[in-house]
Amino acid sequence: MEMESFWTNLSQYMTKESLDIGLYRIVMEECGSLASEPTDVTYEEVKCPGTVRPAIWCKPHSSSPSKLILYLHGGAFISGSPASHRKIAAHLAKKAGTYALVIDYRRAPEHQFPKQIEDVIATYEWLLNDRGLKPNHIAFAGDSAGANLSVSASLAIKQRGLPIPAAIAAFSAWLDMRASGESYERNNPKDALASPEALPGVIKTYLGGASLDNPLVDLLRTNLTGMPAMYIATGTSDILESDAVSLAENARKAGVDVQLKLAPDMQHIWIALVGNSPEADKSLSEAAAFISNKMAD
Amino acid sequence: MEMESFWTNLSQYMTKESLDIGLYRIVMEECGSLASEPTDVTYEEVKCPGTVRPAIWCKPHSSSPSKLILYLHGGAFISGSPASHRKIAAHLAKKAGTYALVIDYRRAPEHQFPKQIEDVIATYEWLLNDRGLKPNHIAFAGDSAGANLSVSASLAIKQRGLPIPAAIAAFSAWLDMRASGESYERNNPKDALASPEALPGVIKTYLGGASLDNPLVDLLRTNLTGMPAMYIATGTSDILESDAVSLAENARKAGVDVQLKLAPDMQHIWIALVGNSPEADKSLSEAAAFISNKMAD
Repeated sequence: MEMESFWTNLSQYMTKESLDIGLYRIVMEECGSLASEPTDVTYEEVKCPGTVRPAIWCKPHSSSPSKLILYLHGGAFISGSPASHRKIAAHLAKKAGTYALVIDYRRAPEHQFPKQIEDVIATYEWLLNDRGLKPNHIAFAGDSAGANLSVSASLAIKQRGLPIPAAIAAFSAWLDMRASGESYERNNPKDALASPEALPGVIKTYLGGASLDNPLVDLLRTNLTGMPAMYIATGTSDILESDAVSLAENARKAGVDVQLKLAPDMQHIWIALVGNSPEADKSLSEAAAFISNKMAD
Repeated sequence: MEMESFWTNLSQYMTKESLDIGLYRIVMEECGSLASEPTDVTYEEVKCPGTVRPAIWCKPHSSSPSKLILYLHGGAFISGSPASHRKIAAHLAKKAGTYALVIDYRRAPEHQFPKQIEDVIATYEWLLNDRGLKPNHIAFAGDSAGANLSVSASLAIKQRGLPIPAAIAAFSAWLDMRASGESYERNNPKDALASPEALPGVIKTYLGGASLDNPLVDLLRTNLTGMPAMYIATGTSDILESDAVSLAENARKAGVDVQLKLAPDMQHIWIALVGNSPEADKSLSEAAAFISNKMAD
């Protein structure tokens, strides 16, 4: 199937009235079919603290086991899994010369903010204390809601006085919990996956009763001083384009080392096509180089 | 999620009136989430002749590249993919000391009988002629509709005077295109996945105008003299239990080397849980030993 018809097909199902949370999750898993199988990578399931189903270690033959990308999958906080994002994480890790770990953080609506952040922190502490990894050899990466988590969890880690990871790579970041982005309507006709109409409902599902002013929610206004270096990539056809641009602005204002990349004409989560799309490959290669460089510090 | 609730959940969606072929396929892909990630296996996509999307090579570190299981996925001839069955094939290959290749044969309703069989034969000839594999180092394995294909394609290969593969491993075989099995109603209350009501429609979708008397369709009556050795496993709660038992009877009548195994209380495609279910592991281990033994001849 052509990629465009895949997205159209998928979004058609996602807007069906009959699509309850269970079926929505199943449909979203199918995004995992878009990436190619990376070669020379093995996998291993591992139980991480604070998560439900096993995480997946991605172990490229050519990579160093002492360097790790903690990959936080997207899916609007309610869907997605280690399985759906295994290939993306493996491609990224292979390019970066690291391993990757894709964790099954708890999802909404069964678990709401800040449970997802707590799961990331629990895994991070486990990596440091039980698996012997160094913070400057760990990067957080994620797409959409997972990009949000890579920022919010890093911030929570900093708040707690723990050593921060070496870098963040945020793809198609979803950050504006006020759903006020200027690109939402502008890019709506060009984005076959994400739609602005769905955002308020999903935000409520994720946040529950949490305040929009909570620093871990209000990531586009929160003071980001002292945060890890950030590679931020978004597509110019992504409805959430302005979320990424605003994150870059907010981070730079706080003196954070930021690389912002706008992928021309790409829609939400274009990196899902890695291995089958030059644009996706390019963005993951850029992110990998950024991560690799920051880990070398 | 517990396995039983997974199946119940899945079959609930599969019987929804809103479930068109596209959504049915997406839901069926989710069966791929049941197996664990096998360790020490790498993957590579490859374009095979006569198929649509790439096939997936499964390459266990401990296996011989000169021995191969051609894995034919299930899904009622209309769903399933290399992605949904990658882990099953990789577990089986690792146990058998072989590689595995999961191909994307053309599916119904877009392509009907005998296109699926032609795709298997085209891949088999490509393996022999272009990839240099020996027929006695190739086994066909499959589940449900894929088990049907492993038998029908072997028969077509024999009919054409080509060298036959070393063995067949058939799990939860679906063979009776007259839908007359005695276990269909008996096991219906115990099988959360397959249902007898669905069979006539799917049979028509697969066969189109083909005759039920066609030897490649009528596999429970066709003379199977000279066919490869067969490992046949089914569950005693599988609605299609009698299909497998009848295949074993028909094959034995023709002097074929048959090992029939009934997995107590297992339902349709219980092997999908390999790595997470001792019963699935046991059946795949038996099949692997059978295949390995026949390849050594």
